[in-house]
Amino acid sequence: MRTYYDCIPCFVKQTLDAARMAGADDALQERILRHILVEISRIDMHQPPPVMGQAIHRIIRDFVGHPDPYKPVKDQFNQFALEVYPSLKQRVKTASAPLETAVRIAIAGNIIDFGVQGDVNTDAVMATIEDALMEPLFGDMEMFSRAVSDADRILYLADNTGEIVFDRVLIETLPFERITLVVRGAPVINDATMDDAITAGLDEVVPVIDNGIDIPGTVLSQCSDEFVQAFKAADMIIAKGQGNYETLSDTTDHNNIFFLFKTKCPVAARDVGCEEGRFVLARRGQELA
Amino acid sequence: MRTYYDCIPCFVKQTLDAARMAGADDALQERILRHILVEISRIDMHQPPPVMGQAIHRIIRDFVGHPDPYKPVKDQFNQFALEVYPSLKQRVKTASAPLETAVRIAIAGNIIDFGVQGDVNTDAVMATIEDALMEPLFGDMEMFSRAVSDADRILYLADNTGEIVFDRVLIETLPFERITLVVRGAPVINDATMDDAITAGLDEVVPVIDNGIDIPGTVLSQCSDEFVQAFKAADMIIAKGQGNYETLSDTTDHNNIFFLFKTKCPVAARDVGCEEGRFVLARRGQELA
Repeated sequence: MRTYYDCIPCFVKQTLDAARMAGADDALQERILRHILVEISRIDMHQPPPVMGQAIHRIIRDFVGHPDPYKPVKDQFNQFALEVYPSLKQRVKTASAPLETAVRIAIAGNIIDFGVQGDVNTDAVMATIEDALMEPLFGDMEMFSRAVSDADRILYLADNTGEIVFDRVLIETLPFERITLVVRGAPVINDATMDDAITAGLDEVVPVIDNGIDIPGTVLSQCSDEFVQAFKAADMIIAKGQGNYETLSDTTDHNNIFFLFKTKCPVAARDVGCEEGRFVLARRGQELA
Repeated sequence: MRTYYDCIPCFVKQTLDAARMAGADDALQERILRHILVEISRIDMHQPPPVMGQAIHRIIRDFVGHPDPYKPVKDQFNQFALEVYPSLKQRVKTASAPLETAVRIAIAGNIIDFGVQGDVNTDAVMATIEDALMEPLFGDMEMFSRAVSDADRILYLADNTGEIVFDRVLIETLPFERITLVVRGAPVINDATMDDAITAGLDEVVPVIDNGIDIPGTVLSQCSDEFVQAFKAADMIIAKGQGNYETLSDTTDHNNIFFLFKTKCPVAARDVGCEEGRFVLARRGQELA
């Protein structure tokens, strides 16, 4: 997916939000904003939005002088997700359609902010997940299920911290002996890295590799050779989150990618061909109703 | 009111919206966006937001090569407001508190978009106005009423087209023989200029002057000498709309200014000290509950 003009105001807003999240004081917020406005004015609109996201967050980390300013938030997300993990497992165990329930849980993990505003509450999150289990899926569950059955080597591209614990629920429901998990190669926003996969206990379930780069998506030209080889050799890619959709929706390097995410903005929703806020389980290039 | 960091993403969004409204094609939208991003990176944050608004809309008018790209929208707003004008007059006539009703109608005129999306519907707008008449006012109606009674020379600063017809309802309810109406000196966004005051029939009710400049607010240092003299000589200023609030909230050139507007963004609401979306009738410097 290319960068749309409507992404530009959003980049500026994300800059301000991220600068604050990273602890920048007023003067530093202003310096960061002025610097990034000029950067954005030179953007290559043919690149997917996460490429600008990568640039923005590199600048912010550089200005605040911290390699991982989201670390406390990430730890909080993981911790909270681990607290609800047993309930999620139980939910799948008692479900009439365990795989579909696990898919919805994995997508639900993409939307819950785990009480960043301070109101971490297990019951409230579980209620949100129960709602998520009722959401109609924009996609074809049968096609996904068949693709999983047919694939010997599945690469599962993780997205965020916290969410990665929800991914564990789905991975454990899938034939996990055929799955390799991929995390980001270095911290960017609250995206999951190797530390988070270990915290989620996923290293004891599946092999885990990283993609070698600090981008909130998957841009093959920037990724490590090891990852690119694994990507091309896989029979099926399961790509979690909107960032992975944005960066892989137009790729010609693989013809069997499934995207699992909630459309979090009108631009991505329009690109997918559905409404904002929908739960998507889409195969790349698939014509969806 | 100074420019806050949260205004910056909003400027970029306004740029895109305005470029589209002005009929810029894709390539021109991109050129405008890139140009204005650099302009915004150099912003003087001590100036109120409408100063950046002025710069943005000058650039857009320049790029699209049209001195008044909002003209069709403005005409539509006026036309529609004139259609509901008799109903508004009737509403005041039958009200138990005519002045307060007229004040609420004037503020309501600040919020209705008159069906820009194409669904101009008199009944729907009148329903919105009925709702507006129930809104609690953030301010002191009694203080406003006393100030009007005490003032020999009242300057009424108009805001938008369409809305100016609603202003006429309030002006005709006030002692209009003591009122002079002020419009913008040149087109900017959908703000009311002399043409619109004439279309609204206000030139037959009160003297109308313009402020000499194309800014969506009132920045005295940029205004004509004639306007500045009238401003300083007036006993009372009634300033309509958020742009006039943003540019006059900190002025020391007058000590009896009343602002009538709806807070349209969280930044202005925080500056006023109320919630977003509130109907404000506030005296400058007044401590509000």
